[in-house]
Amino acid sequence: MPIENPFYSPDVQGPYELYSVGRFELEDGGVIPDLTLAVATYGELNAARDNAILIPTWFSGTHQTWEQVYIGPGRALDPERHFIVVVNQIGNGLSLSPHNAADPSIAMSKFPRVRIGDDVRAQERLLREAFGIERLALVVGGSMGAQQTWEWAVRFPEKVLRAAPIAGTAQNTPHDFLFTQTLVEAITSDPGFAGGEYASHLDVQAGLGRHADIWAVMGLSTEFWKSGFWKAVPMLDGETTEDFEEFQAGFIRALFRLMDPNALLTMGWKWQRGDVARSIGGDLAAALGRITAKTFVMPIDRDMFFPVADCEAEQRLTPGSELRVLPSIAGHFGLFGFEPSYVEEVDRNLSELLAAPV
Amino acid sequence: MPIENPFYSPDVQGPYELYSVGRFELEDGGVIPDLTLAVATYGELNAARDNAILIPTWFSGTHQTWEQVYIGPGRALDPERHFIVVVNQIGNGLSLSPHNAADPSIAMSKFPRVRIGDDVRAQERLLREAFGIERLALVVGGSMGAQQTWEWAVRFPEKVLRAAPIAGTAQNTPHDFLFTQTLVEAITSDPGFAGGEYASHLDVQAGLGRHADIWAVMGLSTEFWKSGFWKAVPMLDGETTEDFEEFQAGFIRALFRLMDPNALLTMGWKWQRGDVARSIGGDLAAALGRITAKTFVMPIDRDMFFPVADCEAEQRLTPGSELRVLPSIAGHFGLFGFEPSYVEEVDRNLSELLAAPV
Repeated sequence: MPIENPFYSPDVQGPYELYSVGRFELEDGGVIPDLTLAVATYGELNAARDNAILIPTWFSGTHQTWEQVYIGPGRALDPERHFIVVVNQIGNGLSLSPHNAADPSIAMSKFPRVRIGDDVRAQERLLREAFGIERLALVVGGSMGAQQTWEWAVRFPEKVLRAAPIAGTAQNTPHDFLFTQTLVEAITSDPGFAGGEYASHLDVQAGLGRHADIWAVMGLSTEFWKSGFWKAVPMLDGETTEDFEEFQAGFIRALFRLMDPNALLTMGWKWQRGDVARSIGGDLAAALGRITAKTFVMPIDRDMFFPVADCEAEQRLTPGSELRVLPSIAGHFGLFGFEPSYVEEVDRNLSELLAAPV
Repeated sequence: MPIENPFYSPDVQGPYELYSVGRFELEDGGVIPDLTLAVATYGELNAARDNAILIPTWFSGTHQTWEQVYIGPGRALDPERHFIVVVNQIGNGLSLSPHNAADPSIAMSKFPRVRIGDDVRAQERLLREAFGIERLALVVGGSMGAQQTWEWAVRFPEKVLRAAPIAGTAQNTPHDFLFTQTLVEAITSDPGFAGGEYASHLDVQAGLGRHADIWAVMGLSTEFWKSGFWKAVPMLDGETTEDFEEFQAGFIRALFRLMDPNALLTMGWKWQRGDVARSIGGDLAAALGRITAKTFVMPIDRDMFFPVADCEAEQRLTPGSELRVLPSIAGHFGLFGFEPSYVEEVDRNLSELLAAPV
């Protein structure tokens, strides 16, 4: 029986549609009998079918932050000009995930291993079969969305005209792998996790809380906390606070505790193994050398686990690409768009990229 | 009954002496009936009693790393010229700690809260009563040892001629507090921890392992892991490896799993609350303004939780101080002295500091 979790509903996340891409063979082995993707679209596909933008989602995120922070009339991602397709990644709680799988052979702890490459292949099939889209004006995504963006640009170079990986790498680093492992362990070590066969995410609140506590360290920055920037950021209850531990509990803990443990683990496993070189024999330079998209590589300056140096090293291996560093006091969580200056900088770069001839 | 843990023995840690400073009232309330400090000394106190150097220890560390990496003839910390006193911090497993307290009223979970200021006052008493030392040519320490160094320079300005806080701050930041909290939770969440009343550290191996896994992320750096630097670093068994997960398990996990959980928690609580301004009303600028020592503030360039920016902000508030950034690919764990270039840079700075007129 699928677990009901109100966090993963249109009431909380805003509207989306479910699309099936049918039977789906996974790169790590195994088959998903019927792969359902949760998709939100904005704008209309034009007659030439050349105004499509794809946005894959990040760890624990959904289409909602993109809708609220990045997409809008007059913005770079403008639904009056573009057909914007946000595809929730496999295992994110809206698309097929361990807790919502009706098929008992893949439910909960039986959910198969999914790779970044699986998401990208499923998205390619979805775009083709559901929307008739063969080429993308832009693929843009943050964090794990950047991993998928890189994978798209390497795997389907003829389909991706422009790419903007924000705060994420093409090949995950050992440091990032080890970081993600601490997130995984925070959850699996909770006795309530029960090997993935809990009855409700409410049974795993301690583990989800510890998982959130690690995010509060690695997802943000020393300046975010020391400056008191958070004092103006509403917690989930809409209130603000002068106490940093209360903010941590009321924002970060409160948010992650709404989520499904197996969903987070599915995404975590996938994140750890993101690697565009995997499908072509392990040579990162050769993989990135395949890219023909006009690419802006956009790390966030204070990011602690997709740091500028790691992103810049990949940018240098990517033909015709440019490095565009985004400033945010919030580090990786700058992706949430706390600062108008960050959002404007993203818009400026994406507008320039979309205007670039390809 | 004190718990026997062979890690905390002269066989493993090298020779040290136990000194009692007697009955000791703690800043957070409570009393230690008989406070015993584990002390290692190198060299001889001269007749003028003006060649003494004090080294307080870091989280989870002992005098041993200082002896092996930083002290030696011809070095800046030269036992042929100086009388070097390394005092193991309270709760580090060698000095009085929860697991070795013979007095049941302060054993294990009953161990009182100890602050950085307690260590510094206990060290001041020890130096005076046991060695007749009234002034220090230098106080130098790394990480929590830097916290103690700062506290010494603020609290006893007339006694500290020179100070060198390496990779540590005078006032702990919220980010650092939250980081340390994840270390604490990794241990206390282990059912084997039993509220601090475990029978052996072997009962808490899962929690100690998760604690170590977080260290592997925050204690090192993305470059340390990505570069393969660790391939040349022997694990605890003396072997090297080509696999980063094996190195993580064989070095970092293996090391922290030898330690006592309550000892780590005692130090963690203390670390979280390091603040030189606490004893004089909370004004950091006023506290640092008290310092008369010639001070070199020495952050490590890739440190993820005592980052250069946080150390530099304090350096600017410290009269007559200088910022000396130390390079290390190993981030905070550069303190272990993996690189000759790091060790040479520390020596160069400490030699210059010791030669400076005061």
